Amino acid sequence: MSQLLSVLREDLGDMLREDEATRAAQRADAWVMAEWAALQGRGGALPLAVLEPTSTEDVARAVRVCRALAVPLVTRGGGSGVCGGVQPGTDHVVLSTRRLDGLVGLESDDLLARFGAGTMGSDAEQCVQQEGLTIGHWPQSIALSTVGGWVATRAAGQFSTAYGNIEDVVLALEAVLPDGSVLRTRETPRASAGPDLRQLFLGSEGTLGVITEVTFSLRPLPETSSGQALHFADFETGLAALRRVLRAGWRPPVVRLYDAREARRSFRDFVPRDRALLLLLHEGPAPAVASEAPAVEALCREGGGVVTDPAAVSQWLAHRNQVPSFRSFLEEGVVVDTIEVAATWSRLPSVYASVVASLGEVPGILAATAHASHAYRSGANLYFSFAAKPSEPQQIPAVYAECWRRTMEATLAAGGGIAHHHGVGRVRRGWLAQELGTTGAGLLLALKDTLDPAGLLNPGVLLPPR
Amino acid sequence: MSQLLSVLREDLGDMLREDEATRAAQRADAWVMAEWAALQGRGGALPLAVLEPTSTEDVARAVRVCRALAVPLVTRGGGSGVCGGVQPGTDHVVLSTRRLDGLVGLESDDLLARFGAGTMGSDAEQCVQQEGLTIGHWPQSIALSTVGGWVATRAAGQFSTAYGNIEDVVLALEAVLPDGSVLRTRETPRASAGPDLRQLFLGSEGTLGVITEVTFSLRPLPETSSGQALHFADFETGLAALRRVLRAGWRPPVVRLYDAREARRSFRDFVPRDRALLLLLHEGPAPAVASEAPAVEALCREGGGVVTDPAAVSQWLAHRNQVPSFRSFLEEGVVVDTIEVAATWSRLPSVYASVVASLGEVPGILAATAHASHAYRSGANLYFSFAAKPSEPQQIPAVYAECWRRTMEATLAAGGGIAHHHGVGRVRRGWLAQELGTTGAGLLLALKDTLDPAGLLNPGVLLPPR
Repeated sequence: MSQLLSVLREDLGDMLREDEATRAAQRADAWVMAEWAALQGRGGALPLAVLEPTSTEDVARAVRVCRALAVPLVTRGGGSGVCGGVQPGTDHVVLSTRRLDGLVGLESDDLLARFGAGTMGSDAEQCVQQEGLTIGHWPQSIALSTVGGWVATRAAGQFSTAYGNIEDVVLALEAVLPDGSVLRTRETPRASAGPDLRQLFLGSEGTLGVITEVTFSLRPLPETSSGQALHFADFETGLAALRRVLRAGWRPPVVRLYDAREARRSFRDFVPRDRALLLLLHEGPAPAVASEAPAVEALCREGGGVVTDPAAVSQWLAHRNQVPSFRSFLEEGVVVDTIEVAATWSRLPSVYASVVASLGEVPGILAATAHASHAYRSGANLYFSFAAKPSEPQQIPAVYAECWRRTMEATLAAGGGIAHHHGVGRVRRGWLAQELGTTGAGLLLALKDTLDPAGLLNPGVLLPPR
Repeated sequence: MSQLLSVLREDLGDMLREDEATRAAQRADAWVMAEWAALQGRGGALPLAVLEPTSTEDVARAVRVCRALAVPLVTRGGGSGVCGGVQPGTDHVVLSTRRLDGLVGLESDDLLARFGAGTMGSDAEQCVQQEGLTIGHWPQSIALSTVGGWVATRAAGQFSTAYGNIEDVVLALEAVLPDGSVLRTRETPRASAGPDLRQLFLGSEGTLGVITEVTFSLRPLPETSSGQALHFADFETGLAALRRVLRAGWRPPVVRLYDAREARRSFRDFVPRDRALLLLLHEGPAPAVASEAPAVEALCREGGGVVTDPAAVSQWLAHRNQVPSFRSFLEEGVVVDTIEVAATWSRLPSVYASVVASLGEVPGILAATAHASHAYRSGANLYFSFAAKPSEPQQIPAVYAECWRRTMEATLAAGGGIAHHHGVGRVRRGWLAQELGTTGAGLLLALKDTLDPAGLLNPGVLLPPR
C-alpha cells in the first residue's frame, strides 16, 4: 500500500488527498445501509486516497495511472445516490468530480449549456435561470447531486412528464474511457450515424468511464404555470384517469398520484380519508396552459376525480426538495427507504397491489405505500416507501434486504421493471439479470469487458454477478 | 461455393432461396449508385443465396449456421435505404426479414403494438389505425420500408417535431445477436437499470445483430389537425422564425422550411419568387391546436413571415410519400440525390450557405437546394437536394462522389453532424470517424469486435475503415 501511495504521490500528487477527513467524506453515498454502518461505528472502509482532478486532462491522467497500477477507481459526484453505488474498498481510490465544476459555455440562441460533470444540480439550474432558461430537470436531490451523477444514474426529474428524463435533456457529453482516451459526442440535435454512443454512459454508474462534461439542451423558463389537485376513490381509479390524460395527448410536467395512505400522511388538509390524491402542474406558454388545464380537469372528473384545493400543489412545491434523513429513523430502530419501479398501465395495479401486500408480510413492517410521479403514454413509475421496526435493531439489515427482495420479486412477477430512476448500485444487482434477461445481462458484461477489461472502474456496482 | 451451398441446403433448406430472380431482387437497396450500376448492366453482385426466415428461431438458426460456416450475412428489409447499406458480395448470404411479418400483439390500454421486423411501415400503421391509433412515424418511405429497417437506420418521420424520431416511439425490441442468442428488452416505459441496450441496435445497420421484432408506444389518432403556410424573405429568416417557435415551447408535428428554389420548384402557386416557404401542421386535442396555431402564426409574423394559402400544406400532404425515381434522371445523364445533415441553430445558416456554395462549384451541377424538415429546441436538420449532369455520363460516379465529399466536408467544417436520418451505409463511411471523433470511432469498432468478432454481419457498412 505504502509503495502504491508513493507512486500515486509521484504521478498524481497535484490532485491526491490522503487526509482521513477527505477519505472519510468520500467513502459512501447516501444509501441507508451506509448510514446504518456509520451509526454502528462501522462507517465503511476508508479508501486508499481521494483524487480531486480539476480538468478532463487530469481525469485522463488519473485513469491511466490507476490502470497502470491496477488500482480500482470509484467515481463519486455529490454522493446523493441511494443504492450503494459508491462504496470503495480500502485498496480503492475515489475520484471526486466535484472540482470539475461550473459553466463551460452557454449559447442562448441554441439553448445549450455545458457544465463540468461535478457541478451541483442546483448551481447549474441557477446559472441558466439567470439567462431566463431552465434545464427542466428537477430530481428531488437537485441540491445534493451533480449533473454528471444525473447522467451516470439515468436520473429522472419531477417535471419529467413534459420535459423528459435525463436522456431527453442531455445533448452531448464528454467522458474519459477506462483506457484514458477522451470521448466527446458531437453537439448536434440529432444523428443517424451509428448507435448513439451517449447511451453507453447514461446509466453506467461509473463502471464504463468517468463523465467529465455534460451539454444540456435547455428551455426558456415557462411563461406561466398552474396547479390542480383532485382526489379519487382509490389509487387504481386515479391511475386509470391519469392514463386517459396521457392518452389524450396532454403533458402536464408534474403528475403525482398518491395512494390513500400517502395522501393522508402528507396532504391531510386536502383529501378526505381513504382517497387517493392527484397533483398536476401545467407549465408553458399562457395559451397552452389555458387549454390544457381545463381539458385535463374534465378528463379527471370523468374518471371520478373530485377537485380539491390547488394549494396542495403549492405545499408540494414548497417541500419537494426535502430529502429524508434515514439517520433519525435508524436511531429509533426504524429502517425506511424508497424503491421506484415502472410498468405499463395494465400492469401497474397488480405491481402496486402485490408489492404492498408482500411488504405487509414483513415482520415489523410499519408502512408500505406508493405514489406514481412520472407518466408516459404506455405506463408510469411506482415509487414505494416502506418503514419497518424489527424487534431487535440488529435485524435491520436483514429486514431491509427482505423488503427489497419482496419488492423486486413482486415487481418482476407482475411484469414490471425493477428500476425507474435511482439506478442499480449494489442494492438491485441481484435482480439485474432478470430485468435484462440472460442475453441482455451477458451483453452488458461484454460491454464492460470491452471497455474495462481489468474491471477497475467501480467494481461491485451495477453489473450482474458472473 | 457449391460445398457451402450444400451445407446451407442441409441446415437451412426450409428458408433457403437460390433462384436467380430472388437473389437479383435482394442484391441492393435504393442507393442511386446501385441504380447506376443496374443501368450500366452491372447490377451488382448476386448473393450466394437468400434466407427467408419466418420466426425468431429461424433467424437464430440462420445466424448460427452462417457463423459456423464463416459466411457473411447481410440483413435486408424493404430495401428502401439510399446509402448503400445493402450490397452483398457473391460469397454473402442475404437474410430477408420480410416474412417476419405482421402484428404480434396489440394492447390498446397500454398503447403498445408489437410487429415482426419485416412488417412494411404502411401495413403496421394501417393495422393500428384500425384501432384508432397511430405509430406517428411517417418516413417518406413508409410504403417501402420495414419497421425493423426504421430501427436499424435510426429513421425519422415527417411528424417528428412533435412525435419524436424512431428512438422515441420504440418501447422495446427483439434482436438476434451475432452469436445466435436472442435479446428481448423489457416492455417498460422507462428504466434506470444500466445503459439502454435498445440503443445498440438503433442505427446498427445490420452490423451488430438482426432485429426481429419491434414494440411501439402508440398514440391515439389526433382529434384534429390544422395546416398553416407562411413565406419569408429568405431561408435564414425562416430558420430564425422557426427557432423562435420551438423556443417558445410549441411543437407542431410537421415543420418544413423550403429555401426559395425549392419553394419555387414545388409550391409555385403559393409563394412569390425568391421567398422561402414554411409549412406547418398542428395536430392534437382540439383545444391544444386552437391555442397553438394562432400563437405560432403570431411568432412567425413577428419574424417576418407572410401568411399564404394553407392549401400548400394539403398539396404537400397529398404528395409526401412520393419517392423520386433516380432511374429516369440517370437515363437522361443526370444524377440526383438528397443528403440530410443536422446542426444547432447558430450553425445552420453557415452549413446551408457553405454546402450550397460548394456544390455550386461542381462541374455540371444543375441545382443545389435545401429544406429543413425536423426541428428541435437546439437546432434542426437540413435536407439538401442536388442534381448534376456531367459532360459525359461515365463521369456520373465521380461527380456524385464529389457532391457527397463537398457536402460532408462543408458540413463538418461548419460544425454540423453528417447524418440526420438516412444512416451511414457505404456512402458516408469515409466521414464517420470525423463525425464521432477518434475515440468514438474506436469505441464503435470495439463494440463491433465484441458482438461480431468475425465481422460477418453486413461487412463494408457503417463502421469506419480501420
